[in-house]
Amino acid sequence: MSNSGTYHVPMAGGGSDGRTVAEKLFAIADAFQGREELTLSEIAGSARLPLSTAHRLVAEWVEWGGLVRGEDGLYRLGLKLWRLGVREPKARRLRAAAQPYLEDLLDSTREHVHLAVRDGLGVVYLDRLSAPDAVPVISDVGTRLPLHATGVGLVLLAHAEPGVLEGVLASGPKKYLPGTLTTEHELRVRLAEIRSVGVSRSVEALTRGAFSVAAPVRDASGDVVAAVSIIAHAVRRDEPQFDLGVRMAARGVSRALGWRP
Amino acid sequence: MSNSGTYHVPMAGGGSDGRTVAEKLFAIADAFQGREELTLSEIAGSARLPLSTAHRLVAEWVEWGGLVRGEDGLYRLGLKLWRLGVREPKARRLRAAAQPYLEDLLDSTREHVHLAVRDGLGVVYLDRLSAPDAVPVISDVGTRLPLHATGVGLVLLAHAEPGVLEGVLASGPKKYLPGTLTTEHELRVRLAEIRSVGVSRSVEALTRGAFSVAAPVRDASGDVVAAVSIIAHAVRRDEPQFDLGVRMAARGVSRALGWRP
Repeated sequence: MSNSGTYHVPMAGGGSDGRTVAEKLFAIADAFQGREELTLSEIAGSARLPLSTAHRLVAEWVEWGGLVRGEDGLYRLGLKLWRLGVREPKARRLRAAAQPYLEDLLDSTREHVHLAVRDGLGVVYLDRLSAPDAVPVISDVGTRLPLHATGVGLVLLAHAEPGVLEGVLASGPKKYLPGTLTTEHELRVRLAEIRSVGVSRSVEALTRGAFSVAAPVRDASGDVVAAVSIIAHAVRRDEPQFDLGVRMAARGVSRALGWRP
Repeated sequence: MSNSGTYHVPMAGGGSDGRTVAEKLFAIADAFQGREELTLSEIAGSARLPLSTAHRLVAEWVEWGGLVRGEDGLYRLGLKLWRLGVREPKARRLRAAAQPYLEDLLDSTREHVHLAVRDGLGVVYLDRLSAPDAVPVISDVGTRLPLHATGVGLVLLAHAEPGVLEGVLASGPKKYLPGTLTTEHELRVRLAEIRSVGVSRSVEALTRGAFSVAAPVRDASGDVVAAVSIIAHAVRRDEPQFDLGVRMAARGVSRALGWRP
C-alpha cells in the first residue's frame, strides 16, 4: 500500500507479499472454514491482506456468487460454493452409499455415527448422524481433524501408505487428552492392532467422556477409502454391541461400493 | 501468448481478454457445474482460456485443493470445495429443517420430493428424495433451473419482489413443453392463483409425463424462503393426496423454521 511515490504495477502472478492473486482469493475462502459470517476486516485479517485488497477480491467473490454480503454487512459463503461442493464426486458417492447403513447404526446405538475420509494428514467428516442426547463432540460435517486423534483417523492411518505415518510423526502430533496417542511406538502398536483386529477402539482421545469405535470401508478393489465410527458416552464402553454394529455398518457400506469379502 | 517480441507484464486486475484473474479462476470452477470430470483442454475451452493460462490457473486450484487431478489425468472438484460448500449456512439450515418432512412426504407418495430456493432468476434444488420407480427428471441436488418452468420456481416467483417477474420476462423465458408458461399474461394469472390457492400445480411444464405440486416454505418472519414440491407421474395427477401432502410438508418445514400461522 505504501509505494514511496513510485507507481507500482502489480504482477498478475504475485502481489507485494509474494502470493499470487489466486492464493489471496483462496485465503479469503479459507477464512470461512471455521466461521459462518465475517466482517470485511475479519476476512482481511484472516487472509493477511490489506483492507483495500481484501475489499477488491471479496467483491470478486460476491460477483461470482461464492460469497454473499448480507443486509447486516456481514459476508457469508454463497450458494454457488454450495452448488459446486455438492457436485464433488467422492463425498457425494460415499455419502449416498453409506446413508442407509449409518441410519441403521444410529437406530441401533442412539449415539453419534460418522463417515469420514482421509485428507492429507487429516480426517474430514463427510456425514454425521446424531441421537438427541448423544455426547457433545466437535466433529461436524465438513470438519477436518488430525488423523492421530480420532478413531476414524487411526483406521485410515492404519491403512494408508507408510509415508502418511511419517508425515503425522513429523508434524508433531498434539496430545489433546491422556488417551491421545502421539509417540511413534504407541501409534505403530495401535495401527498394527487395528489392522489385525479390524476395528479401532479409543477412550477419551479427543473428547472427554467419549469413546469411539471405528472400522474401515473398502471399495471394489479392496482399498480402504473411508471409515465409519461411533462416538458414544464413555460409560457405555464395555457394552459389546458397538464393535459389531460398526463392523456391520462399515461392511455394508463397502458392499454398496462393490467390495466382496 | 504472442507479444510480438515485447515483454508483456500482465496486470493483476485483468488479462488480455479484459477479465480479471479472479474471473478466469471462477470460470474454471464453473466449467464443472455440469460435468464431473474434465481434461485440461476441456477446462480451457469451457473457461475460454489459452491452454497455458488454464494450465497455470488449474494448478493453483489443485494446490489449494479445490480441484484434484486423478491418476487418469482428469480433473475433478476437490474435497476443499465440498467442505466449504457444506458450511454454506442457508442451504445447511434449510436442509436440516426440511429433512424429516421431506422423508414423510416421500414415504406418503413414493415419487420425487424436492426442496428448492430462489437464486436470481433461477431455482436451485437443495435436496431431492426419490422413490426407486419415480418418473425420470433432470433436477438433482445442486441443479439450477429457470423459475418459470418449474413448480418450485413458480411458487418462489409468486412470492418474490415484483422486479423478479420483470427480470424473468425480460430474459425471454423459454417454452420447453406445451405446459410451460412464458407470456406475461399466463405468468401473472398463474402467480396470482398460486398466491390465492397456496400451491402451484403444473402438468408437463418441463418434464414429459410428469406433473408437479409445489408449496411455499416460510421463515419466522413470514417471508417465503424456499419451496417444497412433488414431481409425480402425470397419470396420477387427479389423485387428491398430493396437494395435501405438499402443503403439510411445506408447513412442517416452515414451523421448524419458526413460522406460526
